[in-house]
Amino acid sequence: MTTDTLKRISRSPLTGKDYEIPTILDDKSGIDAFVASHPGKKVVVVQGLGFVGSVMGLVVANALTEEYAIIGIDLPTPASYWKICSINEGVFPIVASDPKIELYYQNALSKKNYYATYDSHAYSKADIVVVDINLDVQKKTGLNRELEGYNVDLAPFKKAIAAIGANCKEDVLVLVETTVPPGTAQKIVRPILEESLTQRGLPTDKIKVGHSYERVMPGPKYIDSIQNFYRVFAGTDEKSAEAVETFLRTVIRTDEYPLTRLGNTNATEMAKVLENSFRAMNIAFMVEWSRFAEEAGVDIYEVVNAIRMRPTHKNIMLPGLGVGGYCLTKDPLLASWARMNLFGSEEKLGQSERGVHINDKMPLYAFEYLQSQHNGSLQGKKVLLLGVSYLNDVGDTRYTPVEGFYEQLEAAGCEIVLHDPHIKYWEEKDIWVSQDLEELMNGVYDIIVITTGHKDYRNNAFLLEKIKQQASGVVYDTIGVLTNEEIKSLSEKHTVKVIGRGDL
Amino acid sequence: MTTDTLKRISRSPLTGKDYEIPTILDDKSGIDAFVASHPGKKVVVVQGLGFVGSVMGLVVANALTEEYAIIGIDLPTPASYWKICSINEGVFPIVASDPKIELYYQNALSKKNYYATYDSHAYSKADIVVVDINLDVQKKTGLNRELEGYNVDLAPFKKAIAAIGANCKEDVLVLVETTVPPGTAQKIVRPILEESLTQRGLPTDKIKVGHSYERVMPGPKYIDSIQNFYRVFAGTDEKSAEAVETFLRTVIRTDEYPLTRLGNTNATEMAKVLENSFRAMNIAFMVEWSRFAEEAGVDIYEVVNAIRMRPTHKNIMLPGLGVGGYCLTKDPLLASWARMNLFGSEEKLGQSERGVHINDKMPLYAFEYLQSQHNGSLQGKKVLLLGVSYLNDVGDTRYTPVEGFYEQLEAAGCEIVLHDPHIKYWEEKDIWVSQDLEELMNGVYDIIVITTGHKDYRNNAFLLEKIKQQASGVVYDTIGVLTNEEIKSLSEKHTVKVIGRGDL
Repeated sequence: MTTDTLKRISRSPLTGKDYEIPTILDDKSGIDAFVASHPGKKVVVVQGLGFVGSVMGLVVANALTEEYAIIGIDLPTPASYWKICSINEGVFPIVASDPKIELYYQNALSKKNYYATYDSHAYSKADIVVVDINLDVQKKTGLNRELEGYNVDLAPFKKAIAAIGANCKEDVLVLVETTVPPGTAQKIVRPILEESLTQRGLPTDKIKVGHSYERVMPGPKYIDSIQNFYRVFAGTDEKSAEAVETFLRTVIRTDEYPLTRLGNTNATEMAKVLENSFRAMNIAFMVEWSRFAEEAGVDIYEVVNAIRMRPTHKNIMLPGLGVGGYCLTKDPLLASWARMNLFGSEEKLGQSERGVHINDKMPLYAFEYLQSQHNGSLQGKKVLLLGVSYLNDVGDTRYTPVEGFYEQLEAAGCEIVLHDPHIKYWEEKDIWVSQDLEELMNGVYDIIVITTGHKDYRNNAFLLEKIKQQASGVVYDTIGVLTNEEIKSLSEKHTVKVIGRGDL
Repeated sequence: MTTDTLKRISRSPLTGKDYEIPTILDDKSGIDAFVASHPGKKVVVVQGLGFVGSVMGLVVANALTEEYAIIGIDLPTPASYWKICSINEGVFPIVASDPKIELYYQNALSKKNYYATYDSHAYSKADIVVVDINLDVQKKTGLNRELEGYNVDLAPFKKAIAAIGANCKEDVLVLVETTVPPGTAQKIVRPILEESLTQRGLPTDKIKVGHSYERVMPGPKYIDSIQNFYRVFAGTDEKSAEAVETFLRTVIRTDEYPLTRLGNTNATEMAKVLENSFRAMNIAFMVEWSRFAEEAGVDIYEVVNAIRMRPTHKNIMLPGLGVGGYCLTKDPLLASWARMNLFGSEEKLGQSERGVHINDKMPLYAFEYLQSQHNGSLQGKKVLLLGVSYLNDVGDTRYTPVEGFYEQLEAAGCEIVLHDPHIKYWEEKDIWVSQDLEELMNGVYDIIVITTGHKDYRNNAFLLEKIKQQASGVVYDTIGVLTNEEIKSLSEKHTVKVIGRGDL
């Protein structure tokens, strides 16, 4: 195949099936037929079929008090086109441990109310467009993953909004759920839409633009993290706010989880990045303390557990390998960028940025510590990493801190074996991951590192026994998964190290 | 009076009574008589009669399951001698809104089991010494209160421990409650005591040294914050830990608030400074966000309240005038100092130190903001400050952020009037404070600043009415006490500013 042909194929990582991306991008008849088959129903277009959008579409397809016709839209690219096909073929493009996903999807299939497309023609049918596309931060990292700067490129986001504006009805509600720099709905989304409407000779006073951020948690409570959870929202004007509220009330269980309306969209946009910055900063805060604990022969876990007994201190964090996922690794930067670039401040959010820097370096600290335990060289060591996901009990590799740790080990000349019960294929690194712990534990390792806190590694007698059967080596628990009893029993033959604890 | 005579007087700020400090410091007969009048009872000496020690003495005098004879000890200095006299005369040296204080004190008076002295002879009678003296950090501040450095001078603390060692029984339990640099009990207290015992020809293997930090909160739950609250403890060896536990069980309601024993005293010492650093850092974190909120026209209070609905984010802080009190303003520095000076680390706790710096500058930000609202000059402005205490509904001026704010206003040429319902006399500034809001509100002010969140200022219709009766001026709420309705009604004549909110 030539490169050109390659580019036109989109492969499903779920089924392995290849889809050829059409040369002529026209799905008008498909869209029109879908809408026509749901007469009288409002059409909700969900823009972006990623971790948030595809499942948001599912929740809207299973709305509580209204029947919608849902169109999911994404780009006809190798990375995304398969999702469109998959939805239309009856295979949901996301695998999750939440049984509600399958339940909701089967329900949508029987109602035939969830269609997917790449064609912007869909926006012309929409009563509501829910924006769930990504807005990324480009980090510039130097040696050792030191953050040297970052850039927020709004161009792809603006282009996506412009696609709505070029097609939408004049009174559509555009509800942004994407985590955006504070100020975006008011200063970017609304002006783009108004300009498009003006160019199309349409009035601009009927369009509604709001912001309501999701708090989606992939995993066993995936659906509930959308449908059964608190929501904060705002509109760029009064009628936008009312339209957002009306819509959210039909899909979210607002009787149990009341909506919170804020004064303006700057506030909701700030709330989202602030809550993630709060968490990122609290993780960063523990980095230096866990190192101090190591120096002082203190078990930081027992200290933190003692402190957590105070209700005012319940949210103090524990140490770990690092911070991963799509949000905590970038949201403080989005906010800082907005402060300077959308509100003209001369000051950045320095502490919040620093939190990101510190967290980004955590895997490096873990690596350096491990190296220091081996006279400064890990050359030729056989290393087993238990866990690739950044999150316990979930298969999510986005910005996982295991990546930085892995790269350091690789550069140091280690032979690395990966295990994760939830991940078969590590997309970002293009590596296959074993899910067979039994088989892996027949191998012999110099170093075994617990890199994710999956419950599969907790109180696992088999794992413990297999490690004990190995010749001596280093067991490095970067999460604090091992109990004191387990550490004691391992210590007979192995050197056991736990991050944030002194000599064991 | 000559200076010499002046120095020998200690005046009670409660009663105004003067006590002459004796030239010959000998209270042996008093101590011996007290102990003799409580035969068979264990003697507990509480070292330090400040905010913690005096009330700890009271709690021990009202122990749950044992009858102790308590001797409070402090220095025969102008600042402290009156406390000794006051206790022996039947006037408790601390005024607090907690009714249990008076109840417990009357009970101690009827049992005659709480004696006070300055004479180190008391240590020779002690079965248990509870160390509740201060351990201060000397901050070096430059222009505008910028923290330029700090110093931890352990000399007074070491001297106090040496006084115990020079007199104590060989098997005494020394329980340190003072917030100390991690490492202190093991590396400083125990060696000093062992050396003293050796010099006195006594064995060193019977002495017991432990650490258990207090979480005392002056105010309406003063007693409960000692007796009905979680405690963390550790010993420098096994028998020390056991002795501490036995003692704490007799004074603390451990059935409802179970004790937590940690692995070593480094851990308990670290837990205390870590929990305060956590809080200080979380306050500092909000400083830049509340300024960003001002810039973006966002009400940070509604944002934070929305975020707090998430259980994982309940402890996110609100903005304010600054941080005060004895703990949060210094504990992160104690920890950082210990890391470098007691554990030889080359790294300080940089983020935690930075949190202290930022918090120290908060009153300056508030002042600068006020100044910027007056074309850069506050010369000749008449300013009413509502609140001097650093804590709501409590009269505690230690390191109150109002001090820095007051000094800035003073230097800017303002005429300042102070009100606080809980403070008559501001010791640190040697100023009398009015408690008569009615009278004060007959005055005319250019600027009224809410500097403490006392409930007296919340939903106070009288205060609101009186402000409205004033000619125009600025009302600056640095705490977020005013409701939206109050702000609206004031805004007719006044410019109302609230810290962490955009234009109102």
